[in-house]
Amino acid sequence: MASRRRPTTLKRYALMWLVLVAIHPSTAAASEGHGPDPAIWLGLAAILLLAKLGAEAAVRLKQPPVLGELLAGIVLGNLTLVGVDVFAALAADSTIAFLAELGVVLLLFEVGLESTLTEMRKVAPQSGLVAVIGVVAPMLLGYGTSYLVNPEALTSVHLFIGATLCATSVGITARVLKDLNAMGRVETRVILGAAVIDDVLGLIVLAIVSAIAAHGAMPDALGLARIIGLAIGFLLGALLLGAYVMPGFFRTSAKLQTPGVLGAVSIGLCFLLAGISALAGLAAIVGAFAAGLILDEVHVQPFGKKSKHDLSELVAPIVAVVAPVFFVRTGMLVELGGITVSALLLSLGLSVVAVIGKLVAGLGVKGSQGDRLTIGIGMVPRGEVGLIFANVGVGIVVAGVPLIDPGTYMAVVLMVMVTTVVTPPWLAHRLGKLQATA
Amino acid sequence: MASRRRPTTLKRYALMWLVLVAIHPSTAAASEGHGPDPAIWLGLAAILLLAKLGAEAAVRLKQPPVLGELLAGIVLGNLTLVGVDVFAALAADSTIAFLAELGVVLLLFEVGLESTLTEMRKVAPQSGLVAVIGVVAPMLLGYGTSYLVNPEALTSVHLFIGATLCATSVGITARVLKDLNAMGRVETRVILGAAVIDDVLGLIVLAIVSAIAAHGAMPDALGLARIIGLAIGFLLGALLLGAYVMPGFFRTSAKLQTPGVLGAVSIGLCFLLAGISALAGLAAIVGAFAAGLILDEVHVQPFGKKSKHDLSELVAPIVAVVAPVFFVRTGMLVELGGITVSALLLSLGLSVVAVIGKLVAGLGVKGSQGDRLTIGIGMVPRGEVGLIFANVGVGIVVAGVPLIDPGTYMAVVLMVMVTTVVTPPWLAHRLGKLQATA
Repeated sequence: MASRRRPTTLKRYALMWLVLVAIHPSTAAASEGHGPDPAIWLGLAAILLLAKLGAEAAVRLKQPPVLGELLAGIVLGNLTLVGVDVFAALAADSTIAFLAELGVVLLLFEVGLESTLTEMRKVAPQSGLVAVIGVVAPMLLGYGTSYLVNPEALTSVHLFIGATLCATSVGITARVLKDLNAMGRVETRVILGAAVIDDVLGLIVLAIVSAIAAHGAMPDALGLARIIGLAIGFLLGALLLGAYVMPGFFRTSAKLQTPGVLGAVSIGLCFLLAGISALAGLAAIVGAFAAGLILDEVHVQPFGKKSKHDLSELVAPIVAVVAPVFFVRTGMLVELGGITVSALLLSLGLSVVAVIGKLVAGLGVKGSQGDRLTIGIGMVPRGEVGLIFANVGVGIVVAGVPLIDPGTYMAVVLMVMVTTVVTPPWLAHRLGKLQATA
Repeated sequence: MASRRRPTTLKRYALMWLVLVAIHPSTAAASEGHGPDPAIWLGLAAILLLAKLGAEAAVRLKQPPVLGELLAGIVLGNLTLVGVDVFAALAADSTIAFLAELGVVLLLFEVGLESTLTEMRKVAPQSGLVAVIGVVAPMLLGYGTSYLVNPEALTSVHLFIGATLCATSVGITARVLKDLNAMGRVETRVILGAAVIDDVLGLIVLAIVSAIAAHGAMPDALGLARIIGLAIGFLLGALLLGAYVMPGFFRTSAKLQTPGVLGAVSIGLCFLLAGISALAGLAAIVGAFAAGLILDEVHVQPFGKKSKHDLSELVAPIVAVVAPVFFVRTGMLVELGGITVSALLLSLGLSVVAVIGKLVAGLGVKGSQGDRLTIGIGMVPRGEVGLIFANVGVGIVVAGVPLIDPGTYMAVVLMVMVTTVVTPPWLAHRLGKLQATA
C-alpha cells in the first residue's frame, strides 16, 4: 500500500512548488522595514519542502535520505542554467549560511550524543587498528591524488582534501546494516566501533589541518606541535570537564523547575564548547561533538523522573529541521556550470581512493573478527563529516582565495555521493555470499 | 527535597557565567575565515543559560518563566552601566536578531497549533463579546494615553501602542489558572476562549496598524479599506487553504517514507505562510499563526500510525531553544540608561489602562456565565504577543526613525511585566473570595 505512490502526490507537490516560484521575489534585496526579508522565509520553505521531496525519492530508490537532499540542493542551485534564477541568491545569503552552520553544529552534537566514551573504550581493542588505518590510508591517498591532479596547489590544499576522506559516516553505515538485518554480526560491531573512533580521529585531523591552513603555510616543527597540542588538549579538556564537572552540573540543573530546562541547558553547553573551540582556532563542530560526547546518558539521568524524553529525543526534532538546510545548501554550492576536466578527474580519483583507503582498513582486523572485505566495504560511505570538512575549507581564505575552490568542492561532494551510492548494493552482495558459504 | 536549593546550585552557575565572561571576546567583529564568529556561539550560550537561570528564579517566586527571561535580558543588556561591555554588541547582531524572529515565528506557530477553528467556533458565543471588548477598550485607552503623554507623535504611533495592549497571553493565563486548580470553572472556559479569539483579533489589528504605519501616514478611506481587506483576506485565504487543500496535502505527505517528514513539512508550511504574509505587507507572525491554526489535529492524523509524537511535541523542543532568544533580546533592548520622565509616565499610564481595559471586557459576560471581575482579572496578563508587536514597531521605520522609540519600547516591556506580575496574586485572592462565599 504505502509503496504505491498515488498520482496526486507529485501533482500536489508540483502545485506547492509552482506557488513558491510564482511568489518568490526575484531579488533577495533586504527590506529595511519589517525585520527579515520575506524571501528568507520563502527560501527556507522551499529548502525544507524540496529537501524532503529529494529525501523521499532517495528512500524509494533504497538510498540514504541525505543523498536526495544533496541532489535537491544541486537542482535548486543550478536552476539558473535553465533560466530560473529566483533561488540564485539563496546559497550566498548570510542567514541561510548561519542556519546551515547551526544545522551542522547540532548534527555533530547529536552524533556526539549517540557515542559515549565508555562504549568507545569497549570497542577500541577490536576496532582501533581498523579506525586508524581507515583514517591514515585515505588521508595519504587523498593527498597523493590531489597532488597528481593539481601539483601547483598549496600543500594545505592537499592536506585538506586528504582530511575530507577520513571519516566514515556512522549514520549511513548503521542504516544500511540494519536494513540488511546484519546488526548481530561481528563485522557490524567492528564497523560501528571503527566509525565512531573515526569521527574523533577525523575531528582531530580537521582541527590540525585547518589550523595549518589558517596559518597560511606549513608551520615549523614547533608550530605544528603547538597546533596538535591545542587540538588534543581541547578534546582532553572537554573530556575532563565531562568527567568531573558535568555530573554535578546536571545533577544541579535537574533540580531546576522550569519547563524545557534540559534541552536549553544542553544546547547552551553545545554552543559554549562550539564557541570555545572556534576561539581556539578549531572548527565549531569539534566543540559541538565534544559537548555531545561528554553528555553521557549518566549525566542526564537525574532528569529521568521528570521528563519522559531523553536528550536525543529533544535534539532530534531540531536537527530534522536545520540539518537539511546544510545539505541542500551544500548541494546548491556545487556549480555544474563550471565543470572542468581537472575537477572531473579529481572527482573520479577521489572516489576511487576513498574506496581503496577503507578497503585497506579492513586488513587491520585481527584473525577471527570477521570478514575483512565486508568490514572494508562497510566503512566506505562518507557523509556529513566529509561535506562539513569541505565547507570548512571553503570558509578558510588564504591570500584572498578560498582554500577549497569550486571545482575541488564539487569533487568532494561527488566523492561523498559515489561512496554513499556504491555501498548498499555491494555490502548486500558480499553479505549474501558469506551467508551462502557459511 | 526538590524545593530546597543546595548552596552549590548558584555556585555552579556562577562558575559557568564567569567562564563565559572570561572567554567572551570583547568585540563582536565578524571574522572572515571560519564561518560565523565564535562570539555568536558564546553569545547564544550565554543567552540560553541566563534565560533558564532567570526563568528558574521566576518560577521559584511563583511567577511565569517568561518574566525571568525578560529580566535576564534586561540585566544582560544593561551590564554596560556597571562597566561590563562584553555583551553590548549581542542585541544588535543580525544573526541574533534573525534567531529571535525565528523564535517568535515558531512560537506563534505553536500558539496557532494549540488553538483550532472548531474550538473557536464552540467558545465564540460565550467568549466572543468579552474578546471584542477586550481588544477595543485597551486599544482606545492605549491610544488616548499615548496621545496625552506624547501629543506631538504620529497618529500611527498612538495606534501602534494601542495595538500592543490588545492581546491576552493565553500561555500565562492558562498556567496561572492551572496552578490555582481552577481549570474546571466556567470563568476559565470564558477566559481561555476569549484569549484565543483575542489572538486572532490582535493579529488582524497588528496587520492593519502596521500596514498603516508602513504607509507613512493615515491612508484615505479607500487605502484603509484595501489594508483591512488584505489582512482579513489573507487570514480567510489561509483558512480556506486549511479547509480544502491541507487535508489532501497531509494525507499525501503521510505516505512519504522519509524519517522526520512531518516536522519538516509542517515547519516548511509555517515558513511559507510567514513569507507570503510578509510579502503581502503583513507581519511574518500573522502567517505563522495562520499556519498553526489550519494544521488541525485532523490533518496530521494520517501520521498517527507512523509517529508516536504529535506535531506540538515536535515543535515544542525547537521553540524551547529559540523563543528564549526572543525574550532575552527583548529585555536587552530595554535601555535603562535612557530612562526619561515621559517614558516612566507612559509605562505607568499603559500599565493602568492595560488593567482597566481588560476589567471592562469582563462586563461582556452574559448573565450566568461566571464572575465578571474574575474574568476581567484573568485577561489582564499581556505576554509574548504585546512584546512581538513592540518589536515589529521598532522594525517599522518612518522617515528614518523607528516607529517605536527606545522610551516607548521600555514602556511597553514594563507594561507587559506589570500585567504579568499583578495577575497571579490578584486572581488567587478573587477566586479564594468566591469560594468562601459559595
